[in-house]
Amino acid sequence: MPMIGNKSRGHNSTSQALRTLLILCCLLQCHSRPHSYDSKPLSEISREVSKYSDIAQQIINLAVYGKAQKRSYERLAEFTDTIGNRVSGSKNLDLAIKYMYNALRQDGLENVHLEPVKIPHWVRGEESAVMLLPRIHTLAILGLGSSVGTPPAGIEAEVIVVDSFEELKKRASEAKGKIVVYNQPFVSYGETVAYRASGASEAAKVGAVASLIRSVTPFSINSPHTGWQWYEPGVVQIPTACITIEDAQMMARMARRGQRIVVRLTMAAQTLPDVDSFNTVAEITGSEHPEQVVLLSGHLDSWDVGQGAMDDGGGVAISWEALSVIRDLGLRPKRTLRTVLWSAEEPGGVGAAQYFQQHKANISNFDLVMESDLGTFSPLGLQFTGSDKARAIMKEVMKLLAAINVTSLEEHGEGTDINMWMKAGVPGASLHTADQRYFWFHHSDGDTMSVQNPEEMNLCSAVWAVVAYVVADLEEMLPR
Amino acid sequence: MPMIGNKSRGHNSTSQALRTLLILCCLLQCHSRPHSYDSKPLSEISREVSKYSDIAQQIINLAVYGKAQKRSYERLAEFTDTIGNRVSGSKNLDLAIKYMYNALRQDGLENVHLEPVKIPHWVRGEESAVMLLPRIHTLAILGLGSSVGTPPAGIEAEVIVVDSFEELKKRASEAKGKIVVYNQPFVSYGETVAYRASGASEAAKVGAVASLIRSVTPFSINSPHTGWQWYEPGVVQIPTACITIEDAQMMARMARRGQRIVVRLTMAAQTLPDVDSFNTVAEITGSEHPEQVVLLSGHLDSWDVGQGAMDDGGGVAISWEALSVIRDLGLRPKRTLRTVLWSAEEPGGVGAAQYFQQHKANISNFDLVMESDLGTFSPLGLQFTGSDKARAIMKEVMKLLAAINVTSLEEHGEGTDINMWMKAGVPGASLHTADQRYFWFHHSDGDTMSVQNPEEMNLCSAVWAVVAYVVADLEEMLPR
Repeated sequence: MPMIGNKSRGHNSTSQALRTLLILCCLLQCHSRPHSYDSKPLSEISREVSKYSDIAQQIINLAVYGKAQKRSYERLAEFTDTIGNRVSGSKNLDLAIKYMYNALRQDGLENVHLEPVKIPHWVRGEESAVMLLPRIHTLAILGLGSSVGTPPAGIEAEVIVVDSFEELKKRASEAKGKIVVYNQPFVSYGETVAYRASGASEAAKVGAVASLIRSVTPFSINSPHTGWQWYEPGVVQIPTACITIEDAQMMARMARRGQRIVVRLTMAAQTLPDVDSFNTVAEITGSEHPEQVVLLSGHLDSWDVGQGAMDDGGGVAISWEALSVIRDLGLRPKRTLRTVLWSAEEPGGVGAAQYFQQHKANISNFDLVMESDLGTFSPLGLQFTGSDKARAIMKEVMKLLAAINVTSLEEHGEGTDINMWMKAGVPGASLHTADQRYFWFHHSDGDTMSVQNPEEMNLCSAVWAVVAYVVADLEEMLPR
Repeated sequence: MPMIGNKSRGHNSTSQALRTLLILCCLLQCHSRPHSYDSKPLSEISREVSKYSDIAQQIINLAVYGKAQKRSYERLAEFTDTIGNRVSGSKNLDLAIKYMYNALRQDGLENVHLEPVKIPHWVRGEESAVMLLPRIHTLAILGLGSSVGTPPAGIEAEVIVVDSFEELKKRASEAKGKIVVYNQPFVSYGETVAYRASGASEAAKVGAVASLIRSVTPFSINSPHTGWQWYEPGVVQIPTACITIEDAQMMARMARRGQRIVVRLTMAAQTLPDVDSFNTVAEITGSEHPEQVVLLSGHLDSWDVGQGAMDDGGGVAISWEALSVIRDLGLRPKRTLRTVLWSAEEPGGVGAAQYFQQHKANISNFDLVMESDLGTFSPLGLQFTGSDKARAIMKEVMKLLAAINVTSLEEHGEGTDINMWMKAGVPGASLHTADQRYFWFHHSDGDTMSVQNPEEMNLCSAVWAVVAYVVADLEEMLPR
């Protein structure tokens, strides 16, 4: 592929030599003293953080009220309108990476480069499902990522409708040769997604020939919501797709009435060999500890429906915008700000996992890892994972956002693409926004720019920039 | 068609002779005295109405808390699950009429019969739209009812995006040979539906070759919302369809960026000759003034998407249920309660217009016309059209519903299928429910049983039954 970043091209340059020198100096410095925040009283750190109130206000003024306002929205709109959706392995994802690489360079960010990864290449192909009995009705479906296809003529079989895995187990003897329809209620994404993730293998274990899950969403306008699924090793792989809440509920009513339901499912889905892709990186290099990193991120791939504007175009846009705002203000923190736009999050954080493997040797230099992948609606605060001391410091940082009323620091930051770092002890933060409707659009054709709001994105960008800049500029890294 | 009601078959029977006699007696009685409510003080009428509080409570108890609860929901679910949607002129509408005729008879209602009407027969056919420039993107569309089709290869043309009719007029010179995309904002259904109703003719007047309207809804998950449209006589008929909010907004953004947009629209839509259909009628015959009528109604046809469970399955179900509840309680009001399930409301109240022509000679015997076609969600009250005195009486009637907190009597009852009666002076009432989301599902694949709630339908049925029964049983007809 023709995408080669200036990181590679810069290897032999003077700037590279300078960077190496800086890194060496810093390594010496690091070895010469412990992380002093471990012993420093919070009152002192609090005083240090509070000195950033002017800078925080400058960032807010520029991002929310100044000439940068609406920029993240406009960038995202132009990006998603131009590229459309971009599923792992697709030509569109290649185009998206190229687009973003060029855009980050044109924006004048530093060290813009691509880091190679291998990613899954699952293709949906033609797919359809028709209920043949008790009456003919076309089902709106989306095959689930990694599903095998059906024979070309499809699979025609009687349906068994269950509300839960427990019911399936109880009625296991009825499932052989049938299509299992899961009509599981939506409890929460975290809980209910189990039906999408492992519904096919659980159905296969009791002899089913295919499975259809009710889309994992609390609300629907007959909208199917796709997503990745995982076959359990050693279990027969059967085709699986999502159907709508409406159709799942209708089939459940029919089954309760004792009606025989027959569905024909046809899917041309197939998994092709993994393909080459890239995590896309841009930086503002740190002035004093360039080897130390505050990482901001979102994922560039999406599902192959809608525009991927929410999942995760918004996270991409604000992780770019934060750097632009800091650069516009002529700021350069002590540590490096690094924006990473992950490849192939949807198949299970594939690009990020390889990034972790590629960079984990350097883990002691990762100060804070940040991810926005839960929507860029009106920001509420950060979900944070870290030590008590680190949390206490982050609470001080959040106070800098009082002017836009985003001071909440919640428990349990999590995110597919940063979990590995957090598990290994690096403090992590996820953006938490007023995302009541997030799963209404998630992985559906409704994930478009129409769900984004420029003012809300301004606020998210401000939060992202203030937190990243201040943490990257403090005297010390966050304690672990 | 094999559907012949017991009205026809009863023409030579003894009961028919008895009915004729009753009608003659009543006609004499009517001529012998004026409507005494015109002169009777409200306090007296109020006392009369308040005597129905026990009966109202019996109705509420049965419909909301007793063995009839959930019946309207279950009936509607079985009906719509069995038949599916039923657009004017379709075989499904025939099946629906047959189904309902049989169901009303099996329910033991009186004078169940079908009254012939002629209705439009528009067929959608295969349809699709693809944006070819600036990138290839499939548009989710639904052709609008009565639209002509395109040539088989489709119409491929550049797009002009406008936000309003005013903008179209200003930019008329740009529209020639193009596809007009209306990206009108949703203000209210009443106001915004003008773009659906006459967008095609307005576009044709400035030389456009087709028109696409942004769906008339305040909310979307990339969902197109169809509906009838009307060609202006003497104006070239061009094909027209709705697109989603998301796609209309995207094309508007692209146009603002100066991008050239090209769309290919392919529609096999055609209008076939009108077909025979029926309004479906069931009654509880009045004990004293059987020729006088309180009419309850909903329409049996729907759009050819979703299940038509909300528009207007709910109205049908509660207009049936109200009679069942009254019959279950062994009640028989002085006047006749007549449920009419209209045919072909969606093409513009076609079945109801013919009913008016067929029955208007008898208009003086129409006491109150009721229509439920705005959803059967949690009931708020009635929208009422009538004289001040009639309104004052209706307010007293509504007090009987205090136990379920549905006492509101609002201004301006309206409804496609009862407007002609109201314009001719007959008091009219429409059910008003908490319908904030009505237009989210309206005329889309989201109009299914999943939007219905059994408890809410219980309440609607109770309102419908109490109002209809009490008005039909008062000493006098409502004053005009």
